[in-house]
Amino acid sequence: MEYLENGTITSVKGIKAAGIFCGLKKQKKDLALIYSESPANVAGTFTLNKVQAAPLLISKDIISKDQKVRAILINSGNANACTGEKGLNNATETQEFCARHLGIEKEEVLVSSTGVIGIQLDIEKIKEGITKIQLSESNSAGHDAAEAILTTDTYPKSFACKVQLSNGEVRIGGICKGSGMIMPNMATMLAFIATDAEIPKHLAQNLILEAVNKSFNRISVDGDTSTNDMVVLMANGASKISINEENNDYKIFKVALRDLCKKMAMAIVKDGEGATKFISVKVASAKSETDADSAAKAVVNSSLVKTAIYGADANWGRILSAVGNSGINFSPEKVMIKVGELPLLNPGYDSNFDESIAKEILLQKEIDITIELNEGESSTTWWTCDFSEQYVKINANYRT
Amino acid sequence: MEYLENGTITSVKGIKAAGIFCGLKKQKKDLALIYSESPANVAGTFTLNKVQAAPLLISKDIISKDQKVRAILINSGNANACTGEKGLNNATETQEFCARHLGIEKEEVLVSSTGVIGIQLDIEKIKEGITKIQLSESNSAGHDAAEAILTTDTYPKSFACKVQLSNGEVRIGGICKGSGMIMPNMATMLAFIATDAEIPKHLAQNLILEAVNKSFNRISVDGDTSTNDMVVLMANGASKISINEENNDYKIFKVALRDLCKKMAMAIVKDGEGATKFISVKVASAKSETDADSAAKAVVNSSLVKTAIYGADANWGRILSAVGNSGINFSPEKVMIKVGELPLLNPGYDSNFDESIAKEILLQKEIDITIELNEGESSTTWWTCDFSEQYVKINANYRT
Repeated sequence: MEYLENGTITSVKGIKAAGIFCGLKKQKKDLALIYSESPANVAGTFTLNKVQAAPLLISKDIISKDQKVRAILINSGNANACTGEKGLNNATETQEFCARHLGIEKEEVLVSSTGVIGIQLDIEKIKEGITKIQLSESNSAGHDAAEAILTTDTYPKSFACKVQLSNGEVRIGGICKGSGMIMPNMATMLAFIATDAEIPKHLAQNLILEAVNKSFNRISVDGDTSTNDMVVLMANGASKISINEENNDYKIFKVALRDLCKKMAMAIVKDGEGATKFISVKVASAKSETDADSAAKAVVNSSLVKTAIYGADANWGRILSAVGNSGINFSPEKVMIKVGELPLLNPGYDSNFDESIAKEILLQKEIDITIELNEGESSTTWWTCDFSEQYVKINANYRT
Repeated sequence: MEYLENGTITSVKGIKAAGIFCGLKKQKKDLALIYSESPANVAGTFTLNKVQAAPLLISKDIISKDQKVRAILINSGNANACTGEKGLNNATETQEFCARHLGIEKEEVLVSSTGVIGIQLDIEKIKEGITKIQLSESNSAGHDAAEAILTTDTYPKSFACKVQLSNGEVRIGGICKGSGMIMPNMATMLAFIATDAEIPKHLAQNLILEAVNKSFNRISVDGDTSTNDMVVLMANGASKISINEENNDYKIFKVALRDLCKKMAMAIVKDGEGATKFISVKVASAKSETDADSAAKAVVNSSLVKTAIYGADANWGRILSAVGNSGINFSPEKVMIKVGELPLLNPGYDSNFDESIAKEILLQKEIDITIELNEGESSTTWWTCDFSEQYVKINANYRT
């Protein structure tokens, strides 16, 4: 696989996009449309929060059916969550309006929203916005769409790659937004991915689940799960290259999609609310993959670890204590903890390290933490950001 | 029951205490001793973290046996956690030294530590400190002990009450420390409680478990669980009033102990790291007590809820979303959410409230949040504090 310079979702054959300002936000772009020239198979995953936004319910329903999709309409500035019957009607009405405008069926349009919870959507603004949308296959149209789905993110997130399969080349492109929290209820994690490969629905669903599990499900900013999270994959077949079974092409595509999702997930963390550092947490030599994931999750969710890294403090005790809280069985005295290449803790609670070297490592913008449990063969890597005063400022004043 | 003005652990008959500076901290008191003139039955609960400090292992072992206790030696400034064999030997040596000094058996001395993880204890300083300790039954001695167990707490926490039983009056007194996080690995939650009632060990254990479950286990600052947490109850019988079975006296005592524990737990939250507000979260009309507790726990642990309250933002969407993440089954559209007496959300996602009144309520120092699930008969109340920039500052620079 090879990443395309300036790549975005419109780098994929047959995909057009647009991102405009329709008036839900004060002045920034707030309405995006992604459009596939041909009907696409669609797969996706959704938030596990019991409180689910209206557009999420609609899109989830479409994706659960054997129904091809042509378009995704996304607004920022308002999550359309906790808005009841009226919220559902509003989401349906914008979906119908968008379908009419594009000359396609209502069920071919997915809807998605992000922003404040509990306020009814101003659908007149969205409808008016839809009539003004000019779809384009240019890169800048893809980037416009990426910009229009942002909330507290500080920059748009677009990626695309080309993948060589046995019968030719396919492309995968995507846009996503965070920010700063993995799944906050106000800064929803959304990702929209398209490929011009032809992939049957059930394979697309397997591919996106596996990719999300190894990427978006391994990032954290504050451990909250949003009402609006979704990751959607559209496969429109415009390249005429098919992946019909779990053969070698499937495997190549799987690796590429996973890598692209990782890039997107890491971009979300890097743009974390108030984040000043990007942190990779590798848990190695665990008894099982589940144990490794539980330990890594506890570390990336620990406010104490994240504030220590913010303060460039080599406080390995907080890391070990977080693993101790993860619920896994392990022997603390067997653990080794490193930052970069520097061991802070060796087995047997041996922690003789040079504080000035540790400080130097922890003052970098990207920090690698390795936790060797010395219990087995499994390992995992999760990603998070540090925790600064800025996070509190952003979230204390989000709505008002 | 009646609270005693200026009450502390030495308000209990037969209990002496002391708190001094022995040199583990830079200048503040860092060594406390609690002493019972007669051997006391002892009960306690301990952290669930897999990583457990040396003194905790020793005290836990003593409490698990049918062994009376006379003294508790506590140091701050160093947690003696993740210190391996040497840490265990150090804890044992201070325990032995203290026992010799008091002329009692080693197994009659509980040990407890709080402070930085992973650094060996300077036991010479502790031993020298022990030789200088002057035990006293005065109130000020109890308050000195409360002062000597603090870490990032900003004030000592002492309470005592008298309880009228059928055969006379008994007293319960306690000291505790937080701070700011319920169970952080650096600001360990410790509580030492004494009563002059005579209570058999198994009843004392039931009483303390029940009281902790309704108090210390219902507070949160950042959801981290420490390596050193412990709550200990000593019952020395000095009042000559016995509670031998689960009769009416037992019930009266139970209510009093629970209330005292609640007072202590609330004091810990109020002195939370960087806390500017005290928040009570009541979850009512839940299907079960477990559901109510899960929902309340999710809300008090949500950084998004806590930053919103810090910002005096009536962001009920974050509260509902936190309940949605708690794993319980409920219908979001049936939920009512109030701050103080003001409904922010009524069933059916009806959220028509006066923002200026909400703001006024949220600018108070004490905030009551009520969440009516309208699913059943169970309810609970948990306590937390808000989440300010100061929390990040304290924890970014704790160790260095």
